[in-house]
Amino acid sequence: MKIAVDAMGGDLAPQAIVEGVMQATSELPSDARIVLIGREDAILEIFRQNNFSSSVVDIIHAEDVIEMGEHPTKALSQKPNSSIGIGFKLLKEKEIDIFCSAGNTGAMHVGALFSIKAIEGVLRPAIAGYVPQVGGGYAIMVDIGANADCKPEVLAQFGEIGSLFVQHTFQIERPRVALMNIGEEEQKGSLTAQATYPLLKDNKKINFIGNIEGKDLFTNKADVIVTDGFTGNVLFKLGESFYEIAKQKGIQDDFIDQTNYESIGGSSIIGVNGNVMIAHGISSPLAIKNMLGWAYKQVKSKAYLHIANALN
Amino acid sequence: MKIAVDAMGGDLAPQAIVEGVMQATSELPSDARIVLIGREDAILEIFRQNNFSSSVVDIIHAEDVIEMGEHPTKALSQKPNSSIGIGFKLLKEKEIDIFCSAGNTGAMHVGALFSIKAIEGVLRPAIAGYVPQVGGGYAIMVDIGANADCKPEVLAQFGEIGSLFVQHTFQIERPRVALMNIGEEEQKGSLTAQATYPLLKDNKKINFIGNIEGKDLFTNKADVIVTDGFTGNVLFKLGESFYEIAKQKGIQDDFIDQTNYESIGGSSIIGVNGNVMIAHGISSPLAIKNMLGWAYKQVKSKAYLHIANALN
Repeated sequence: MKIAVDAMGGDLAPQAIVEGVMQATSELPSDARIVLIGREDAILEIFRQNNFSSSVVDIIHAEDVIEMGEHPTKALSQKPNSSIGIGFKLLKEKEIDIFCSAGNTGAMHVGALFSIKAIEGVLRPAIAGYVPQVGGGYAIMVDIGANADCKPEVLAQFGEIGSLFVQHTFQIERPRVALMNIGEEEQKGSLTAQATYPLLKDNKKINFIGNIEGKDLFTNKADVIVTDGFTGNVLFKLGESFYEIAKQKGIQDDFIDQTNYESIGGSSIIGVNGNVMIAHGISSPLAIKNMLGWAYKQVKSKAYLHIANALN
Repeated sequence: MKIAVDAMGGDLAPQAIVEGVMQATSELPSDARIVLIGREDAILEIFRQNNFSSSVVDIIHAEDVIEMGEHPTKALSQKPNSSIGIGFKLLKEKEIDIFCSAGNTGAMHVGALFSIKAIEGVLRPAIAGYVPQVGGGYAIMVDIGANADCKPEVLAQFGEIGSLFVQHTFQIERPRVALMNIGEEEQKGSLTAQATYPLLKDNKKINFIGNIEGKDLFTNKADVIVTDGFTGNVLFKLGESFYEIAKQKGIQDDFIDQTNYESIGGSSIIGVNGNVMIAHGISSPLAIKNMLGWAYKQVKSKAYLHIANALN
């Protein structure tokens, strides 16, 4: 298995990315190789500083870098030799099994859509965020930022592809799918939420358990939380802030520690023909290391192939 | 000052409501009288159980009760002698200075619109939720549930009336108004958020500081957080769950304790010609007691008159 990482993506790149990769090598299963994509001299310099040499890390040189503030579509077409451009080229050609980056999120999303493309029948690929649950385990929330405005049909499909993703990644037989809403009753919510509810309820391929509320995000009510990318993003970021506040206050707790973005490290783009993970711009070495653990699981799950089979 | 409380509203009414009122009497300033509206015999029975007698509590008998699940408009027209119906009649006639209830939220909102009515020029009255801030003090988030779908003009006005409300209730000269969004840059967000930003920016009556993100809810970035009632509701409820999770985990912290719904006790309907507060259905005596403290401050602030003057 080849797990590719954009060495140049993120506010602390390449230093933090390469450090995270070095840490990951000792923890990943033996069938995993890591491919670092970026400026070879910069990567080698960090290896040297750390006296690091490993037979399980390859470097693929990329001359250019897409910066955080660049316009995704323009940057991708103008910089085919950027680390993100090369990463998606390799992913499309199946030279790598997953592409991970803490760089420009828009460029990662557009890059996935332009290279490996949406799975046939998928209306809108989305970003699935991992949400730790009190009592253990994780739910995913779909979408957490790729699609700020969603039609009911799009939301309903998030429930279906999210369910397949969770089923295969977490080995949960019938994942509980819930709609994030402002009340438990069917008729509650925005016009979009009201129109989405019956579409989810009528879909016999999923185990729809109804609406959940903001207070239920962490409380193990659902395995797949369906929401638009605006609502999902603000909820996800508020959830991550719990750890920041607790840390400031000197509070240490195993669950709250899991709400730290570093403990998960990345989110998955689902609904595309391949495996893509994106990480926070501020990603630390720990965050990168942990993302690579999830990346390994995601590749093993073959979730995207199961989604493609189910829809076609 | 007469602070009226619906004795019959809430899952634990009238017991928890009357107990909260009894506790409040010893803490409220001496110019506050409490008016309990509800079934006189039930209220008196609770007084008797507690050997309670006070010269600052009046009872106004209401024969009927609007239940939590009832349709707001129907219930209000069919039950004029309900505690909520009588409460709004008294508020309209200025027999009381504020009306508070933990009962049917929809009936409280519709009751306010039908009786004291929206302030002229206010597009949509909204519910302002009090959000404790790390480091002390409170922000308000508008809306937290009355208007699940909001046009940009409505959101922009939440910024203006929210700013006036905070200015007079919290005595903050130029409250910082922010738009809840999924990124800090102006062009970020849903179509609605993108269209709202310039309206807030161009409004010279407010101190608009730009977008904030979910992670900023508690971190003292803004005094007025503008959002639609869907987003605001899910964020507010996730915020309240912080306390519930910490309590389960045995974590005690002054800030986290403030995220407990009981510590604030209620939210304010703003944009109407009078003072109205609503509380959680599950309100405990402590929540009711604390709401009455806020109610006192709200009446003193005359915020609704300031809003009416500013708009007309």
